Amino acid sequence: MSEFARLSAEINDLLCILNVLNWDARTQMPPGGSVTRAQQSATLTGVAQEKLLSPAFEQAVRAALDADPNDRAAQQTLEATSALKRVPETLTRELAALKGEAQDVWAEAKAANDFPRFAPYLERMVHLSRDLADALGYQDHPYDALLNLYEPGLTTATLLPLLQRLREHHVPLLQAIMRQPEPRTDFLDRHYPAAEQRAFSLRLAQAFGYDLTRGRLDASAHPFEISFTRQDVRITTRYQETFLPGALFGTLHETGHALYEQGVAPELSRTVLASDLLGLYAVGGASFGTHESQSRLWENRVGRSRAFWDLHFPALQQQFPEQLQGVSAAEFHRAVNRVRPSLIRVEADELTYDLHIMLRVELESRLIAGELSVQDLPAAWNARVKADLGLDVPDDARGVLQDIHWSTGYFGSFPTYTVGNVMAAQFYRAAQAALPQLDAQLASGDYTPLREWLTQHIYRHGRTYTPHELLERATGSGLDPQPYLDYLSEKFTGLYALEAHA
Amino acid sequence: MSEFARLSAEINDLLCILNVLNWDARTQMPPGGSVTRAQQSATLTGVAQEKLLSPAFEQAVRAALDADPNDRAAQQTLEATSALKRVPETLTRELAALKGEAQDVWAEAKAANDFPRFAPYLERMVHLSRDLADALGYQDHPYDALLNLYEPGLTTATLLPLLQRLREHHVPLLQAIMRQPEPRTDFLDRHYPAAEQRAFSLRLAQAFGYDLTRGRLDASAHPFEISFTRQDVRITTRYQETFLPGALFGTLHETGHALYEQGVAPELSRTVLASDLLGLYAVGGASFGTHESQSRLWENRVGRSRAFWDLHFPALQQQFPEQLQGVSAAEFHRAVNRVRPSLIRVEADELTYDLHIMLRVELESRLIAGELSVQDLPAAWNARVKADLGLDVPDDARGVLQDIHWSTGYFGSFPTYTVGNVMAAQFYRAAQAALPQLDAQLASGDYTPLREWLTQHIYRHGRTYTPHELLERATGSGLDPQPYLDYLSEKFTGLYALEAHA
Repeated sequence: MSEFARLSAEINDLLCILNVLNWDARTQMPPGGSVTRAQQSATLTGVAQEKLLSPAFEQAVRAALDADPNDRAAQQTLEATSALKRVPETLTRELAALKGEAQDVWAEAKAANDFPRFAPYLERMVHLSRDLADALGYQDHPYDALLNLYEPGLTTATLLPLLQRLREHHVPLLQAIMRQPEPRTDFLDRHYPAAEQRAFSLRLAQAFGYDLTRGRLDASAHPFEISFTRQDVRITTRYQETFLPGALFGTLHETGHALYEQGVAPELSRTVLASDLLGLYAVGGASFGTHESQSRLWENRVGRSRAFWDLHFPALQQQFPEQLQGVSAAEFHRAVNRVRPSLIRVEADELTYDLHIMLRVELESRLIAGELSVQDLPAAWNARVKADLGLDVPDDARGVLQDIHWSTGYFGSFPTYTVGNVMAAQFYRAAQAALPQLDAQLASGDYTPLREWLTQHIYRHGRTYTPHELLERATGSGLDPQPYLDYLSEKFTGLYALEAHA
Repeated sequence: MSEFARLSAEINDLLCILNVLNWDARTQMPPGGSVTRAQQSATLTGVAQEKLLSPAFEQAVRAALDADPNDRAAQQTLEATSALKRVPETLTRELAALKGEAQDVWAEAKAANDFPRFAPYLERMVHLSRDLADALGYQDHPYDALLNLYEPGLTTATLLPLLQRLREHHVPLLQAIMRQPEPRTDFLDRHYPAAEQRAFSLRLAQAFGYDLTRGRLDASAHPFEISFTRQDVRITTRYQETFLPGALFGTLHETGHALYEQGVAPELSRTVLASDLLGLYAVGGASFGTHESQSRLWENRVGRSRAFWDLHFPALQQQFPEQLQGVSAAEFHRAVNRVRPSLIRVEADELTYDLHIMLRVELESRLIAGELSVQDLPAAWNARVKADLGLDVPDDARGVLQDIHWSTGYFGSFPTYTVGNVMAAQFYRAAQAALPQLDAQLASGDYTPLREWLTQHIYRHGRTYTPHELLERATGSGLDPQPYLDYLSEKFTGLYALEAHA
């Protein structure tokens, strides 16, 4: 084992341990442990950072590059550590200190519907994030530097026109849907005991191929997937006993993330190619968007399809005979695909979700560029919600204050949700082309060919390739919204009996 | 915060994180995670060790001692790091490598009842442990150096006569008991659903004062208590659905450990005085024996007393009405205190347990001193079991191969179980003297005065004092078996209607 491999393994170990601490804090830890746990995580983060930026590691990286200038892991390491070394320590400290404080203030401000309370913290966060962008460096737009933290290679110049094209498609489609009668959904809100929800969801996750000898499902306030190498990939969900789709599709969503992590090639475990060095945590997926493409693909493309429920609805009905009495598979399928504009992103349906993302991305890129002031933010938010979703925002708590992201400085992460949708459709189209029997296989509950295609073209590579390279290799093209637009048009045209939609 | 305090806090954080990894591996981790988890633990152990033995830390320790020569934490740190630095790196590596291998071979040998298969590994382990003792240093007996790892200050010269005195008491008492009729115990073996066992045990743990906002109870193959600072102290138990006492008294036992850890003074969190630097893990208790004194005190002294079951048996009977129909509190009390010689240590009752310990301590101290060969070990074991317990050992699997300890090199840890029993009786007698209403308080279910006395005199001090100092301060005397002998005599004389026993 080379010195570079040995030190990389140590760093990946430490990042995996940070993930264990994080998982435990969010699923198992008694409340009394929170303060000392935060100290423990901070100490371990410091140790990992120190090792990552140590002269010994730099020397090992350079030796690896001397031995093989095309060593992907070494190249990525050098890029990441060079970027991190460009960030002044004072800025890192200021950002860390502000994050803790700003999150608390945000929570208070949201509870009190008091944007002015949060505004100075947000201003400071925008300011420091811009400083961070300047330190990291960019070519055209400061927002590019932040995008790069979550979606390496994605630029504002590519992203904004792509989002605009989606808007031009989604808004008229939404308006057409709104003119149609609403599907029946009353049966989704009946009483569904959590234990039975869990059993059913977990069976579906296993049917997709989630390997429980290397994983487990727990409950948490916010669902997530996290991995400590491909050998231990855990997911969580949240049970609402009077709303069936939450835990059910939440589990399928996290299962998509988990299939990605469980599918990373074993030889990438304990390497830089299973570590996000800029974000300083262990992850096998190539980027946030690539990861999201897999959660969305399994949740929406597979799990919300008509074929899926034609196959699985009888078992669901057997599990919940009273709650679903007299409901057909077709009705259930329509209900879980209902489209309706809403104020809250995390409650949005498959179609309107992108509209929530677009408004955030446009506003945050302008904040970072200095084109929009924090003071003008609420009005800009509300105008956009009115224009895209047709809704009046009644208060900032249900408007500009709804998400935690900006209080933690996660500027640049929102786009990855929509980029994930776009990529999912591209990957799926490529899989369809490669697997002529795909639709029939999925209809019969055989998820192995799809999972194996995805593993072969995406999962096993870990972080070896950039998202763009991965997309090119798997689909033959760069980011292209057409397959996604085609999918949504066809799906909702059928579901809502619309005139054929461009 | 001094540099010594800052670096100590980091080291304690890392040791607490090691405990989190350990807890997770034993209670939550899917089986597929074991290999990469072991690598993660090894990496983190290496980081902690490096920090502990770094020149920077030594400099900080010396600066702290310059500032205050009586700084307990700094004194203990210097002692521990000096001892660790005396151990050659090659020996540490050889021991670590042998442990992994010897454990596997031991498990195979035990399953196959094949002592000769294990013998060469045990020989090597004895040899390396003796090397370790020589490196650590000792005055009179090489076994002292190993004892010191678990029970600082305890010597072979004190220990062996103490054990002999217990034997001279226990063996005739056991023989007297064996001449009496056996109590009825059939009702203990009925079907007790695990969930109800858990609910009842946890209520008792909370009644003792176990704070669930800083703790939790899980299931594991081997019960244990573990802490990640006093703010997060977790216990586990093992449920046997056809044997009630296992999980019930197991939970009370671990609760005793947990009360100790939860009672450590807050200002000792993240210090050396909540860290076992020689063993390299986080713990607030002063030693293994001191810790065991608390688990035994709450399990046996409180939890197996007649007053305890007079108070709690009605609730137990209500929880299990069919299983305990027609059983009285007195019968239940007699059943859970039944004495019967057995081959297996972990199944032994309160009285015979010490006899199992004595034989191990005598044999292992002679192995380390080179007075007994591994080849002669099984015969020596079997002779001792016959003499003390009156039993013939049918095979080595139920004899010399039954415990994992020697395969992992834990020579010197066995005595702490019996030392804990002895200390528990001393502490209890001191508490009785200080709290004239103690018996009445316990009889009424008021555990607060006892817990507060123990917190005041033991728990809050963490590892500030050696076990001997702690005992002296709390009871006015050193290790003294008399209170323990008095307690056992009185208890079993009453339970078995014996003639008054010396």
